[in-house]
Amino acid sequence: MEKVLEKIRRNERMSAMLKILSDTPGKMYTLSHFCALFGAAKSTLSEDIDALRQTVEAFDLGRLETVTGAAGGVVYRPEISREAARDYIEGLSRELSGTERVLPGDFLYYSDILSTPETVNRMGRILATEYAATRPDFVLTMETKGIPVAFATANALGIPLVIARHTSKVYEGSAVNINYVSGSGNIETMSLSRRAVRENQKALIVDDFLRGGGTARGMVELMREFHVEVTGMAFVMAAVEPIKKKVSGEKSLMTLEVLEGENPEAVVRPAAWLS
Amino acid sequence: MEKVLEKIRRNERMSAMLKILSDTPGKMYTLSHFCALFGAAKSTLSEDIDALRQTVEAFDLGRLETVTGAAGGVVYRPEISREAARDYIEGLSRELSGTERVLPGDFLYYSDILSTPETVNRMGRILATEYAATRPDFVLTMETKGIPVAFATANALGIPLVIARHTSKVYEGSAVNINYVSGSGNIETMSLSRRAVRENQKALIVDDFLRGGGTARGMVELMREFHVEVTGMAFVMAAVEPIKKKVSGEKSLMTLEVLEGENPEAVVRPAAWLS
Repeated sequence: MEKVLEKIRRNERMSAMLKILSDTPGKMYTLSHFCALFGAAKSTLSEDIDALRQTVEAFDLGRLETVTGAAGGVVYRPEISREAARDYIEGLSRELSGTERVLPGDFLYYSDILSTPETVNRMGRILATEYAATRPDFVLTMETKGIPVAFATANALGIPLVIARHTSKVYEGSAVNINYVSGSGNIETMSLSRRAVRENQKALIVDDFLRGGGTARGMVELMREFHVEVTGMAFVMAAVEPIKKKVSGEKSLMTLEVLEGENPEAVVRPAAWLS
Repeated sequence: MEKVLEKIRRNERMSAMLKILSDTPGKMYTLSHFCALFGAAKSTLSEDIDALRQTVEAFDLGRLETVTGAAGGVVYRPEISREAARDYIEGLSRELSGTERVLPGDFLYYSDILSTPETVNRMGRILATEYAATRPDFVLTMETKGIPVAFATANALGIPLVIARHTSKVYEGSAVNINYVSGSGNIETMSLSRRAVRENQKALIVDDFLRGGGTARGMVELMREFHVEVTGMAFVMAAVEPIKKKVSGEKSLMTLEVLEGENPEAVVRPAAWLS
């Protein structure tokens, strides 16, 4: 990356710079870094960045943020407009609705959606856009199905992912365990390595599914044990029933209702806050 | 995204095009798509793409592949040079070596590394570069710790991730279960939803850690049940001991040896194939 080309044209420099910035969302690059990389003057790069800022906004490709001063530089935020977010989630809701994906017990099969990179990255961008202002230090999820979307959200925010486990594993060192009541009414254990989190950090909870909110409530309690503030809770899908959840203030991308009958039908809708 | 700007300058067009391409690795875009987006002629866009191809290669930012003909277009591959890959893994190996990360039982704590997006994306790019030529249809991993790096690899290849579970969950529908002998000598169960995979597909196995190879062997057997060919096996870390593994032909990014003593020390080295 330290290579300096002989004569780098503006379009090449700008393309490479946006690519480097957008590969590492939330990471600040100093102008000096790009000066060394491209062999260009700071004033030239400032003009490039101004032009790039307009380009990414015009095509809804995110946002470039410049910070002035000694500790200054430029950082890319993969924000997405509310309109594009709604359009995307509407399309996904249509794809998930119908009779084909309903499993015995009125569960919805959507594991494929939850691990298709293009879809997962888009969902991560939407959640990151919504929660960036709360400035979380990490994203917390509970294994297993929510891990890809939680990772994509962490990636879009430029912060680490932390994964709570069902049991403490020997290879994670000393851990804090709590018990919680799961959606099925069972008492289960949630465990997190002591090394994973520091006191007074802020956590954004991201998971795949919210039914009664037992697991989400467990994650909130787990964070309390670590003296970590929860700045938000986001889910890919929330069941309409039960209406009363054990948590509040959460946001989901979609809601799920299963209409019973001989051929049970899933009705998936974009969440109200997206419209 | 259908927005056409009044007069789009070349540098803006090229920057936006590379950003769109690199957001969705492995996805083919037709020239017509960009013609509509930018209001430019095909010949103009072909020139832009030629210039972009040189730019990404000059700065080791991946590779642009153009396919001619009716079904043609342009696709971005986030490949990384062997030299950059080795430099990165050398740095990571140094960070993981020493006494601080050794846990009781001579395990190494590196869950943080396995869920830091920038690191995970880099490892995913390295593995994708190595296995792209085998043309897998999906990446397979076994829950939990390898999921982020498996997802990043799938993302870099532009293919889905498939996650095998310890037990079949009601919300994944009918599943295939197999039993396997884990590293600790216990007989464990591995389960995968029938809907997750189709016959005659090709799988790339990616996981966080290889000790004896019991779990990896289980994944190979699971794929056999689905009539899926395994095109490769990749791990973030492989223990030096036991030397004889239950699988062969695998590649890891790093090797781990723990020197016993009062203060056990982890010796982490880049794998030989990287040099």
